[in-house]
Formats: sequence, C-alpha cells, structure tokens
Amino acid sequence: MKILLVLAYDGTGYGGWQRQPNAVRPTLQAVLEEALGELTGEEIRVQASGRTDTGVHAWCQPVQFETRCPIPPDRYGAALGGLLPRDVAVRASRAVEPGFHVIRDVTAKTYRYHLRAGGPPDPFLSRYCWEHRHPLDTARMRDAAGLLEGTHDFRAFCASGSSARSFVRTIHSIRISEETDPVAIEVTGNGFLYNMVRILVGTLVDHQAGRCSPEEIRRALATGERALLGPTAPPQGLFLWDVSYRDGPVLPGGEHPRLGELFRSAI
Amino acid sequence: MKILLVLAYDGTGYGGWQRQPNAVRPTLQAVLEEALGELTGEEIRVQASGRTDTGVHAWCQPVQFETRCPIPPDRYGAALGGLLPRDVAVRASRAVEPGFHVIRDVTAKTYRYHLRAGGPPDPFLSRYCWEHRHPLDTARMRDAAGLLEGTHDFRAFCASGSSARSFVRTIHSIRISEETDPVAIEVTGNGFLYNMVRILVGTLVDHQAGRCSPEEIRRALATGERALLGPTAPPQGLFLWDVSYRDGPVLPGGEHPRLGELFRSAI
Repeated sequence: MKILLVLAYDGTGYGGWQRQPNAVRPTLQAVLEEALGELTGEEIRVQASGRTDTGVHAWCQPVQFETRCPIPPDRYGAALGGLLPRDVAVRASRAVEPGFHVIRDVTAKTYRYHLRAGGPPDPFLSRYCWEHRHPLDTARMRDAAGLLEGTHDFRAFCASGSSARSFVRTIHSIRISEETDPVAIEVTGNGFLYNMVRILVGTLVDHQAGRCSPEEIRRALATGERALLGPTAPPQGLFLWDVSYRDGPVLPGGEHPRLGELFRSAI
Repeated sequence: MKILLVLAYDGTGYGGWQRQPNAVRPTLQAVLEEALGELTGEEIRVQASGRTDTGVHAWCQPVQFETRCPIPPDRYGAALGGLLPRDVAVRASRAVEPGFHVIRDVTAKTYRYHLRAGGPPDPFLSRYCWEHRHPLDTARMRDAAGLLEGTHDFRAFCASGSSARSFVRTIHSIRISEETDPVAIEVTGNGFLYNMVRILVGTLVDHQAGRCSPEEIRRALATGERALLGPTAPPQGLFLWDVSYRDGPVLPGGEHPRLGELFRSAI
C-alpha cells in the first residue's frame, strides 16, 4: 500500500531533509525512516516532495512510502506520535493510488520566508526569521518581486552544483505581508531550483536597500549571472509551506496553518 | 558599575540556567558569561533572578553583573547581539544602584505555562507546550487553582533536594486562559520553590481529570505530602515570564510580551 504523510518540522536541529552518509546532525529522512521502521517492522524508504536544506523548516512536507503494514492509513499520525521527536509531527496521512508520485505529480509549491527589521529582540522569533538591523521597504520589495513573477530561466537564482536539467520555472505569485514585524514573503510556483527562494529573498532585500537595480535583476534573468543578485538568505527564515497536486492542496483548505497566526502576518 | 540585563531565551537546547562543572549541554549562565567576557575583556560572573531548569524558557530573566567596561549601560543588547547564540537575546539593559540585588530585591515573579489538549499536531507549538491527548476542563482547573492562591506552606509542591529554609510562599494569583489551544496558566507570587510551578500545573491537570481531589490538595498543603499531588509537568511548557522589583516590573508595561500574541491566549 502506498501511504502519503504530511509532515511538519522545525528544521533548526537537523542537517536538512536528505539522509547523509556521515551526517553530523540527524536528518529528517533518517529520523522518519527509523520511526517507521520501529512502527512497521519493515525497512521503509520514504520520498519527500522535495529536499529542504539544513535549518529549513516545513509546515507542509508531503512524503510517500510503500508498506505492507495493516495500520489504518489515517492513523500514522497517532501511531508515530511517540516515536518521532517533538520537533517533527505528522499532520495528516492517507492511502494514495499506486500511480501517485509525491515529486512528479506536484502542480504547485509555496514557500514562506520571514524577516525581522530591527524590532525588539526576541529569541523565539529569531529561530524562524532573518534578522535585519534596518527597516525594510516592503513597497520596493514588491516592485522587485513583480520582475520575477512569470516564466523565466532562473539559472542565476540557482546555487552552483545543481543537477537540474532545465532552469525554466514559473513563479505564479510573490506576496509580501503588510505587517512588518516580521515581514512574511510567500512565493508560489510550479517548481523551485536549489536555493532559489533564498536567493530571491536576498535579492528583494538588496533591491529595497538600493544595492540591486531592476536592470541588474533583468540582466540576471537574461544572462544567468548569479553575481548580479543579492545574497542567499539564511535558512532559518524559510518554510516549505504548502504543496498542491492535481486535486488541490495536499491538506484541505479548512486546516489553516497555525504558524500564520503565530507570526501574525496576514498576507 | 552594576549592570542589569533582561534576558529572554529558548531553553530547549540548554542544560538550564546555572553553570555546571561537567555539563553535557551548554548552560545559559556559561553562554552569557562567555559572551560578556569576550565583549569586556574581563572575567564576568553574573547572577540571575533565579535559576531555570533544563529545557525551561524565559521571556524575562533579570541578570546582574559588575564591570569596569565603559560600554554605555543601555547598549549591551546591541553589543552582545553578535556574541550570543540566536536563541538568547538581551531585551533591555541599564545601570542599577550598587545596593540593588537581582535576587533579594524581587517583589513578585510570574511564570507562564502552556498546555495543548489534543489540537492538530504542530511541532512549533510543541516546543513550548505540554501535549495532552484529551480536552482539559479549565473550569475545574480554576477551582483547584483557587485552593492554592494565598499564603501557604508549599513544602508538598517542592522537589526533594531543595535547600530552601522556609517553604512558606504567597501566590498572588493563578490565571487560566479562556483560550484552550493552547491553554495558558500564569502564576504570580512572591517567590517559588524548586519545581513549584510544574508540580502546581501537574496538580491542576490531575484535578480536572478527577485524579486529585480538593481534599487531597488541602491535605497536601497541611501535611507537606508530595504524593498527594499530581506529576511534575514537563519543562518545555514553562516560561519565566515577568519579574517585579520595588519600582514595578523590570520592563515597563509598554513592552508587551510578543509570546503572548504568538500563543494567541489572552488571559
């Protein structure tokens, strides 16, 4: 039977999603596979909708695996509750068609990024935000965002070492909150390259500070030149936020992400 | 010069406040003293308003130390920003009279505790909450809380091994939120024994579940018998929330604790 889990995790203490041979920190894949192994007595290998990097969080990370275990498909959350560390949770689980594929069938993904701009020190927020010393001009960030929406060759927005065959992606929308402490940025697209959202956020920040002109952004899209863009934003601000398949978001719309409220940033 | 810092920290990764000789995990005192040493070039020893245990958080932890360093007293937050880990922040700093004492001069302390009662899984909230499977009857918790307000010998609410000379303390108020996911409990008093708030919370929970009667609570207060009470609630739900001195709260009322909003639990 093919099972789909929707995972949420605080990535702070993890070496990213993907299992690593000589990892210093545990990886989320290894932690989940170990818990599933203990639960089912089988050697389970899982696949996620995409990797998340070291320190990146997920509010909605779909994961698939095959099992012969007779646990009712919707009970994996309860059954894994005591086997997973407190910073990893199963938000939902169900059986899926054998033909379903958690990576290939993705129709859209949303990432959310949080930035703080000199508000009062708060160690609980800084776990989940990129901290800036100066105010952020969100109107200017929106201007730069407008240049990036649509279908482009995003080669310049891809960390080196990527194995992507095509760099063309479509960004459906980049939405930036009115609220400024923290600022939330939601990027929805049909797929993302390695570090694409973090380079995009670093570029919006550089643009609003006057360090990266619209002309430079246009040239980066045309030429693929990474050096024209802003820095790669740090991982702790980034959340894999929502993933959609043909029949809609992987979790029905009724389940409002609690973190949105935590961060008080209506978008 | 005597400096007072107001610290906030996420205690998850720490072995509590107090420096330990052979600590497995770093302690908050050691981390702060190291950062202050680097900043001032002096060997600084700090004193906090009270210890917090392994895994306990603080939104407001006053800390004092002596220094000859010419840094303006209100600039310690900015100066330490790059020297402290992201999960520790200085919310305010100022010079205090030589006669001020961060422990002896405390007039009231507030601790805040968060519990979840079977809401949707959320690894971001579970870092800061005690998770229950069943709904919590907050009306019944309020009944039990009423028995504990006032001046009592709280010997039964004290973990063994305490070096306290007197067990008499006054609880000014125990307030419980209307909101139930999470439930927040704020306990204000003139001082607290070792594990007192966590045993109090465990007792409120046992009471609402019918496992600890008003008669047993009264008998525990009269006899000091720990076994009559509920379990010691786990550390991750507990925050040192507010500390007052003669002239009022250590941070002026204008600074609303951001975490209160994070947890959406108006009290």
